[in-house]
Amino acid sequence: MKELVTVFRKERFNSAHRLFNAEWSDEKNLAVFGKCSYPNYHGHNYEVVVKIIGEVNEETGYVVDLKKISDLVKSEIVERFDHKNLNLDTQEFAHLIPTAENIAKTIYHILRPKIDADKLLQIRLYETEKNFVEYPAFIDVR
Amino acid sequence: MKELVTVFRKERFNSAHRLFNAEWSDEKNLAVFGKCSYPNYHGHNYEVVVKIIGEVNEETGYVVDLKKISDLVKSEIVERFDHKNLNLDTQEFAHLIPTAENIAKTIYHILRPKIDADKLLQIRLYETEKNFVEYPAFIDVR
Amino acid sequence: MKELVTVFRKERFNSAHRLFNAEWSDEKNLAVFGKCSYPNYHGHNYEVVVKIIGEVNEETGYVVDLKKISDLVKSEIVERFDHKNLNLDTQEFAHLIPTAENIAKTIYHILRPKIDADKLLQIRLYETEKNFVEYPAFIDVR
Amino acid sequence: MKELVTVFRKERFNSAHRLFNAEWSDEKNLAVFGKCSYPNYHGHNYEVVVKIIGEVNEETGYVVDLKKISDLVKSEIVERFDHKNLNLDTQEFAHLIPTAENIAKTIYHILRPKIDADKLLQIRLYETEKNFVEYPAFIDVR
Amino acid sequence: MKELVTVFRKERFNSAHRLFNAEWSDEKNLAVFGKCSYPNYHGHNYEVVVKIIGEVNEETGYVVDLKKISDLVKSEIVERFDHKNLNLDTQEFAHLIPTAENIAKTIYHILRPKIDADKLLQIRLYETEKNFVEYPAFIDVR
Amino acid sequence: MKELVTVFRKERFNSAHRLFNAEWSDEKNLAVFGKCSYPNYHGHNYEVVVKIIGEVNEETGYVVDLKKISDLVKSEIVERFDHKNLNLDTQEFAHLIPTAENIAKTIYHILRPKIDADKLLQIRLYETEKNFVEYPAFIDVR
Repeated sequence: MKELVTVFRKERFNSAHRLFNAEWSDEKNLAVFGKCSYPNYHGHNYEVVVKIIGEVNEETGYVVDLKKISDLVKSEIVERFDHKNLNLDTQEFAHLIPTAENIAKTIYHILRPKIDADKLLQIRLYETEKNFVEYPAFIDVR
Repeated sequence: MKELVTVFRKERFNSAHRLFNAEWSDEKNLAVFGKCSYPNYHGHNYEVVVKIIGEVNEETGYVVDLKKISDLVKSEIVERFDHKNLNLDTQEFAHLIPTAENIAKTIYHILRPKIDADKLLQIRLYETEKNFVEYPAFIDVR
Repeated sequence: MKELVTVFRKERFNSAHRLFNAEWSDEKNLAVFGKCSYPNYHGHNYEVVVKIIGEVNEETGYVVDLKKISDLVKSEIVERFDHKNLNLDTQEFAHLIPTAENIAKTIYHILRPKIDADKLLQIRLYETEKNFVEYPAFIDVR
Repeated sequence: MKELVTVFRKERFNSAHRLFNAEWSDEKNLAVFGKCSYPNYHGHNYEVVVKIIGEVNEETGYVVDLKKISDLVKSEIVERFDHKNLNLDTQEFAHLIPTAENIAKTIYHILRPKIDADKLLQIRLYETEKNFVEYPAFIDVR
Repeated sequence: MKELVTVFRKERFNSAHRLFNAEWSDEKNLAVFGKCSYPNYHGHNYEVVVKIIGEVNEETGYVVDLKKISDLVKSEIVERFDHKNLNLDTQEFAHLIPTAENIAKTIYHILRPKIDADKLLQIRLYETEKNFVEYPAFIDVR
Repeated sequence: MKELVTVFRKERFNSAHRLFNAEWSDEKNLAVFGKCSYPNYHGHNYEVVVKIIGEVNEETGYVVDLKKISDLVKSEIVERFDHKNLNLDTQEFAHLIPTAENIAKTIYHILRPKIDADKLLQIRLYETEKNFVEYPAFIDVR
């Protein structure tokens, strides 16, 4: 019987963004997104928490070496988004509105193929201390 | 197939309360609740985290506009409980012991009808940094 | 030459209070103190940080044993104020408005005689994460 | 129908440890565990969050008295591990590598028989602010 | 004799910025400021802590009503900088590099005339959890 | 006239230590230091906050490049103490009791010659969230 343990690793990146639907008028963008749609961008200290579920390796006592997960998140996510303008500098958000929801989903889809297929993955993303998201909502696949 | 994302919003309120079962003697209340039953009340900086699960709207990139959730929590919860004595000033706890468990359940039942029925809701309530609760315990209804 | 080091110890207590000047009308109290003057009290998770400045004892490497400071703060401050109504249950605030400023000053005057006279003392008190105070403002007496 | 609520209690302990597999050479330990395997130990401020799920008792408004859970965690976990060397001073880790995963599992197995059998239990353990684990991964037994 | 107490109030704003000296080449800007000079901006969740020193008013128990300071900081600072691009959207940083040092000084000079002249003022600004600044460095004017 | 600004940078390291005066008996060590003197060491997640005071360079808007301070603290302090046993693995604490006071003083004396002489330096060291120290106590040399 599988005995599953969850491990978490937190990393940070600082980015500019704006919420803007290119198919809408400026007025509609302002009505829907408020100050989040201001044209010259604002920014956040994002915190990403990577959650991985798997069995503990008996030889190491690890589900996975969190140092390797830290390195992976730094090379794949922090390197890509840190000190960048998400709308202007990244291909991921060239045509996708960089809401916290969409950033979390994007991070998940970047990391998923880099993590062992027998492990489950979930991403929590903090945009501010008060606003945060999680993707996918459910990871219980037993 | 539905692809669900979770969003969270945190708000705060400061209230007085005491734990007291009106059907018990003062001695039994003290024996069960200890200093939490002291007659003249004590208080807490409560933090409430509202968790909502739903599909991402493709036009907005939002599960729900967290600004609207913030406004809702402020008008329905903070306005009701902030700087109040939960036992004396609120009808919700006139006959219900204001434990963290009961406060979280009460917040859930106030907010549930105000949030779209196709979305799932869970409440986390921090009474102190060390004591907190969540209701309902399980929200996986797939 | 004296070589001074500062040490800090944090403790917590949870209390009810209201801001109310007994020489004023209810209307004036409400006008000045707003919801902080509501008659049935509200409350806070207070955090007190005791700051002590002195020379390092060469035999122990301590300015002062922080375990003893923790015990002192627990017996003199936490025991006195925790799970109490500051206005109703304490003699300190029977005739003194329990603002954060006055609570910090009161804590200082309770602890000052209990701490070695050759050491400097300052109190920081958090009423909420966003509102906090310090007394005395200046402790540099060289 | 059962209506389940979750309660949480956080406690802390400070311990030394090293990650070391006695069946491997020093070189292999260093290759796998890096600086976590340094021979003279390092240490952490561990935070343990005990999560308990159960029905609310109507008389008390509690799932469980968190003061009793605090006392239990202090007597069973903090007393056992605080200011100890996990590898040298505890029988639990005499032959088990004290990774965060294994510490969380060990805490679970110590506490599980001490908590009512009709309640569910999960342990979250913070080794640092950035590295933390949870056991068991899933507790939904409905 | 004056008996001075210090009060603090924390507020937040989210902005985009870049560090760029217009008198330098792009190469020199990159050499000096690194990724902080990337052309399309990045951003931060700034936290500003306003520190005010004064005498306690005996009638109110306040140095100053922190609700009024909160309102002042919101109207003068948050309104001005929140969800803005500091370089493009503000006159304050049209010709001044928006380093944390310069933002703190700017906030000080905006607030100083709005606060009673007999009170001392200091600004702490958090750019990230790890990088923060304070201005002025010294406020002891006795 | 000099206009001074303060900048801060936080870093972390995880170490084992014990408090032990080699000139005392084990009994006296236990009596004075309690569980902090247990023979097999315990450990902490230390946080060090480096505070530097100086004038703002008009060309950069910096008192000092905090990236360089981060690199300095990592190479001089974190590299030296992280994942080490302070008593056994470091020459600094071979004959000096590694109390928080002494660690802060030691960090100060390591960093002081590496930082421009016209700048003031102060070290804050967190041993736990509740116990922390600062050295030197006073840095106002005007």
